[in-house]
Amino acid sequence: MKIPKPTVKRLGLYYRCLARYKEEGVNFVSSQDIAERLNIKPSQVRKDLSYFGEFGKRGLGYNVSKLISEIAHIIGVNKEWNVAIIGAGNLGSALANYPGLIKHKFRVVAIFDNDREKVGKKIAGIQVSHISELEQKVKDMDIEIAVIAVPESAAQYVAEQVEEAGIKGIVNFSPIKLRTKIPVEDVDITLSFETLAYMILKNSPVESEKEE
Amino acid sequence: MKIPKPTVKRLGLYYRCLARYKEEGVNFVSSQDIAERLNIKPSQVRKDLSYFGEFGKRGLGYNVSKLISEIAHIIGVNKEWNVAIIGAGNLGSALANYPGLIKHKFRVVAIFDNDREKVGKKIAGIQVSHISELEQKVKDMDIEIAVIAVPESAAQYVAEQVEEAGIKGIVNFSPIKLRTKIPVEDVDITLSFETLAYMILKNSPVESEKEE
Repeated sequence: MKIPKPTVKRLGLYYRCLARYKEEGVNFVSSQDIAERLNIKPSQVRKDLSYFGEFGKRGLGYNVSKLISEIAHIIGVNKEWNVAIIGAGNLGSALANYPGLIKHKFRVVAIFDNDREKVGKKIAGIQVSHISELEQKVKDMDIEIAVIAVPESAAQYVAEQVEEAGIKGIVNFSPIKLRTKIPVEDVDITLSFETLAYMILKNSPVESEKEE
Repeated sequence: MKIPKPTVKRLGLYYRCLARYKEEGVNFVSSQDIAERLNIKPSQVRKDLSYFGEFGKRGLGYNVSKLISEIAHIIGVNKEWNVAIIGAGNLGSALANYPGLIKHKFRVVAIFDNDREKVGKKIAGIQVSHISELEQKVKDMDIEIAVIAVPESAAQYVAEQVEEAGIKGIVNFSPIKLRTKIPVEDVDITLSFETLAYMILKNSPVESEKEE
């Protein structure tokens, strides 16, 4: 069964919301509780969770710990992922230093560049490797995810190298649509600016997660 | 009328898709044409565009130029936005150098930091200013959008300063939920990694834009 991408994205939000409830010592929550914290509709929460069977009990709500581990299993945060960053420029450096990644079990273990000036330098404690070492390091270090943080002109070529090296999926920060057989998640920063521009123009926030 | 956020985000995608059609000399497109390029359902395209009235004509499709200018008007890309980046670290530098922003009429005109070592240095041709100059520069340079690219611990304080300085909206790269009266668009990079992890685990891409 295929799950809509917006649902997958919301599962990450539910996971964090539930983790916070757990920290606060809360054992059971309703879809209403989750929805209120995230400013979405309870029916959306119930619909999203219904893709994965019946977790909740009428009147009692969801068991927080159980739901956390079910969602973690589904979205893959109960395992640790080794990540390589391709491109040791500002963006690559920012990502290597981004504390949110390791907090969510995405561990940056290698950084690659083709610029001999950058190779050998340390970013966030990791020595930058030449891109020619990619395939060997992917094998040796069990790297499954690559982040493409190179200029637009190099992105497709790098994506092909990454795929050949045995990487399983790409987080793509370049503005081009990559042609690959492995899954790609595009991060389009401009879209966030456009959404904000729309909110400013309308002088009121759009409904953050209205059901379509 | 409130428009769902996923629709607003897709309007940005439609805008780019239509711009490409225009470059290719195409004058009329169907919802099917747009949907195919973006790998979403034609019914989703029609539904999204229906929020803004009837643009298309049966049998003829949408007038590309007209639809571009209608969407541009709606999402606010027919005006240019002046942007300030708060935080002159790697992330701030990466954003200042990101060509996608100016291409979509978001012009970075100022960069602020509270670190005296960074103030005065140039990033992407812009001299870094001390954060104490924020209010004056916002007025002088007609800055409407601020990007928060500071460490988590400083984010809420910076957001308050930004709001007091008269900024109209925030793009927030910090992982905390900001408390402000002005609109905030959160950019959560970790969510992209989680979506990718899910796609890898399921060994097949999720439906990229399935209707919910």
